[in-house]
Amino acid sequence: MSSPVLRVSGTTLTVLLCGLVMAYGSVASSGASETGKQIAEQGAANASAVACAFCHGADGGGNDASGFPRLAGLNAAYLEKQLLSYRDGTNKNPVMASMATSLSPGDLKEVAAYYANLDAVSHVMAPADVPTATGEKLAEDGDFSQRGLPACVQCHGPGGQGVGSAFPPLAGQPFLYLVKQLEAWKSGIRGNDPLGMMKHVAKLLTADEVRSVAAWFAAQPVSQGPNSKDNRKAKLVAKTATPAVHTGPVAHHGEVEPGREPKNIGYFVPPSREEFPDGPFGEKVRQGEAIFNYTNTHEVSRQYVGNEQACSGCHLDAGRLANSAPLWGSWVSYPAYRRKTKTVNTFIERLQGCFKYSMNAQGSKAKHPPAAASDTIVSLVSYAYWLSTGAPTGDSNIAGRGYARVAETSLGFDPGRGKLVFEKNCAVCHGANGEGQWAQGEVVFPTLWGPNAYNWGAGMHKVNTAAAYIKWNMPLGISSSVQMYALLTDQEAWDVAAFMNSHERPQDPRFDGNFSRTARKFHSSKYDYYGKLKKPDGKLLGKDAPRK
Amino acid sequence: MSSPVLRVSGTTLTVLLCGLVMAYGSVASSGASETGKQIAEQGAANASAVACAFCHGADGGGNDASGFPRLAGLNAAYLEKQLLSYRDGTNKNPVMASMATSLSPGDLKEVAAYYANLDAVSHVMAPADVPTATGEKLAEDGDFSQRGLPACVQCHGPGGQGVGSAFPPLAGQPFLYLVKQLEAWKSGIRGNDPLGMMKHVAKLLTADEVRSVAAWFAAQPVSQGPNSKDNRKAKLVAKTATPAVHTGPVAHHGEVEPGREPKNIGYFVPPSREEFPDGPFGEKVRQGEAIFNYTNTHEVSRQYVGNEQACSGCHLDAGRLANSAPLWGSWVSYPAYRRKTKTVNTFIERLQGCFKYSMNAQGSKAKHPPAAASDTIVSLVSYAYWLSTGAPTGDSNIAGRGYARVAETSLGFDPGRGKLVFEKNCAVCHGANGEGQWAQGEVVFPTLWGPNAYNWGAGMHKVNTAAAYIKWNMPLGISSSVQMYALLTDQEAWDVAAFMNSHERPQDPRFDGNFSRTARKFHSSKYDYYGKLKKPDGKLLGKDAPRK
Repeated sequence: MSSPVLRVSGTTLTVLLCGLVMAYGSVASSGASETGKQIAEQGAANASAVACAFCHGADGGGNDASGFPRLAGLNAAYLEKQLLSYRDGTNKNPVMASMATSLSPGDLKEVAAYYANLDAVSHVMAPADVPTATGEKLAEDGDFSQRGLPACVQCHGPGGQGVGSAFPPLAGQPFLYLVKQLEAWKSGIRGNDPLGMMKHVAKLLTADEVRSVAAWFAAQPVSQGPNSKDNRKAKLVAKTATPAVHTGPVAHHGEVEPGREPKNIGYFVPPSREEFPDGPFGEKVRQGEAIFNYTNTHEVSRQYVGNEQACSGCHLDAGRLANSAPLWGSWVSYPAYRRKTKTVNTFIERLQGCFKYSMNAQGSKAKHPPAAASDTIVSLVSYAYWLSTGAPTGDSNIAGRGYARVAETSLGFDPGRGKLVFEKNCAVCHGANGEGQWAQGEVVFPTLWGPNAYNWGAGMHKVNTAAAYIKWNMPLGISSSVQMYALLTDQEAWDVAAFMNSHERPQDPRFDGNFSRTARKFHSSKYDYYGKLKKPDGKLLGKDAPRK
Repeated sequence: MSSPVLRVSGTTLTVLLCGLVMAYGSVASSGASETGKQIAEQGAANASAVACAFCHGADGGGNDASGFPRLAGLNAAYLEKQLLSYRDGTNKNPVMASMATSLSPGDLKEVAAYYANLDAVSHVMAPADVPTATGEKLAEDGDFSQRGLPACVQCHGPGGQGVGSAFPPLAGQPFLYLVKQLEAWKSGIRGNDPLGMMKHVAKLLTADEVRSVAAWFAAQPVSQGPNSKDNRKAKLVAKTATPAVHTGPVAHHGEVEPGREPKNIGYFVPPSREEFPDGPFGEKVRQGEAIFNYTNTHEVSRQYVGNEQACSGCHLDAGRLANSAPLWGSWVSYPAYRRKTKTVNTFIERLQGCFKYSMNAQGSKAKHPPAAASDTIVSLVSYAYWLSTGAPTGDSNIAGRGYARVAETSLGFDPGRGKLVFEKNCAVCHGANGEGQWAQGEVVFPTLWGPNAYNWGAGMHKVNTAAAYIKWNMPLGISSSVQMYALLTDQEAWDVAAFMNSHERPQDPRFDGNFSRTARKFHSSKYDYYGKLKKPDGKLLGKDAPRK
């Protein structure tokens, strides 16, 4: 937020208030915006806009009956963007357009900042007559395999509490508001979503599903800010102890985007989450799923994770999704000979390899991957085994195993071109510097490079592997590895993978102290930037990779 | 062999020779029998018997063209029994009957001792026109699953070199002799086999199979005595390096004993040995099979074995056989919760449990079971996984898993009754004191109790488990776990299991220093004799169990 003294205000009132702020520095130090407060509580000075509070509540908690959203505690940049969208018509709402156009962009920023600074609050009463079982399932798990539909919380964060400036909280928003927004995305009335993500996602939902998912989010408690780390895990524990009872299957989607018809007939179908087994084995399976999704924060597994990664970052839909390196594809294929290790590895050794490389276990509290008999490994093995129920042992050619390939292009791949692809398509989630995003103490969009990313030994550091993963799985909700529908061209996928993997990251744990020997021994592939590309400091990538 | 001076001879010549022996003590010390030599080389003194050498060769190497067997180096007790069988008609052969009846039982013993003392030799030329691929397969692997037919070498020992006094060598015997014997078992002309084993087995072979297996054994090199440890392993290595090329499938058997029709339709069928995969993974699979069969002597695994047991001792047909705790039944069922460990165990932990208990790893060179990433475990896991090719993951109710149960009887079980069952049915292979039998450095019939047996923590030490295994799998070649054909009644199976498991064996590795606490904690089952039965020395079983 800009400082009041440097700000150029568009209203006389604001100038006046600036003086007040200068006189009463304590207000400025609180971060609150008096201009925003004034508009929110009393409307525009020239009466061209009514007070926001009139509809959105004195505390910004929204109006449930009318479906006016809560604003308190939402991200300032998000709120500002919404107001600007009413002005530019990318979100069509006559009332809000009138308000937004009557205020200057500067005023809009002030109002947004004001509401962002309030304590999050909601007065929503979720409708009692709308069943939420389907909505809960879609919100928490999505329907990746049938229609390429990610879980809502995959972007909106744990509990739907919101993530950064692009993914607002859904928890505690009025049922009517949420329904209306999903309908608006579908119809095109609202079109201000990054990459058209919400347009794609909303079109995959039936009217009943829209109501169910809206009712479920409306009923979710509101969290006080994005840094409450306990929220999601408390929920997770509760979920593990007493699984939700689902009363019916997810209805099939009524409307299908052209080209997105389900193509997954023939892919192995793992047992559904409603079929979790009972007893001690079932507990291990559930714990395995939780570890898979929250590897870096789960109390059992976090000691082995030396970065901010979770298994589910590279294996979507909790390891269920075809062509997204599903667990069932691996389970039936191991033990197997691996060129990487030059020997036959068991499934457990393969899992330990994920910790060694993708989780950079060397940098963890334990400093090594979990042992074969550890709770972490036994849980993950139990989960993988259970997910594979019915899959034929030894079918290493099972359809959907690993990632779907992406054809090489005549142009090859280029980090420079990839940078533009990244900025346009990836930065909204992963951050301008690939730093990722967190919410409720959990990683939502993983770090792509730097010390918190996968290390120089991980499979994902190879451009071809990354291109294959990205092409068919990114961005969430648009591309689908099952329907084989992709936003990025092959060329874009290769280039952005090259861009991602031409950044520094933790040292290869096989590094033996001799950089050029390590590069020669393990990084001779043409898809590998280790020891090949110079960084701005003139040093080769990998040369001074952080070792921890 | 009895001492010459104490021996009561039936011939004048022998008395004379006794004097000679007394005068020339060096002959006696060589162990050679002059009476036997005399009869063998020159016939009976009264000319009632021609010299054995006339037909069986001067060196006892047999006569290939006529099909007269080699005698040199065979077990003395075995040879003596055969001669007595000609006398009593349990083996009908007019020529040999004439010879055997013209000599006294004492003379027969002398002749037998004489040949037993010669160096093993054979002059056999295997027939060039009889294909041996089928025979080799039957000899080495049998056809357990289709017709309850164990491998010939399962009783006749590695390479068919013979085991003890009941199982003569087959290697280097004349083709015609072997064919004639198998036909004689079938027809009943020869009926002097223990428990009728050979009668059962021979009836399961077609005429072509008889010829093929005879041709294969005829061609096998003769080993010098039962203590040449390298024979089998050299063969094993060769087999691993260059697998035998089998030119055709095993012909289906033409004659089926009543009640022995194949009932295995519906059991999972593992890939055949002809389908071993290639490359490094295939090598691990082959090594896994070798470790499974020769756990206590294989150079990779022996360091973890603290007794004289191999996996195949309790899992017949190299872990392939339904209702004999096949590997494929376990593979698809793990990880699983186990009451024994009170937690969820992976397949690898289950394997390590076998080493801990059934192999008594504590007493091994390594003093602990193999680690999860050890060559031993990776090989066994590779083998189990490969054997399970096509089996549905998670099908823990797969038909044929574990052992087939045996119903409890109104009499319960009793070691005293079991002793009689054991002596009648089991001692011929496992020895009068359950000590087992070895040949070519390999265990052929495992030790059942004492310091070289499974320990007090092994599953087999439970009477119910042992009864189930014994009922449907013992004796080899008669009972069949697939055809559900059994020699022993339920009562006999329970009683003999009780007899076997009421002997001392290595201490339970869970023993915590307090005998009664260990007994209470781990041995409260009514099927468990640990801490319950008094030994002759007045101490409870398990109290002073050997700890190593």
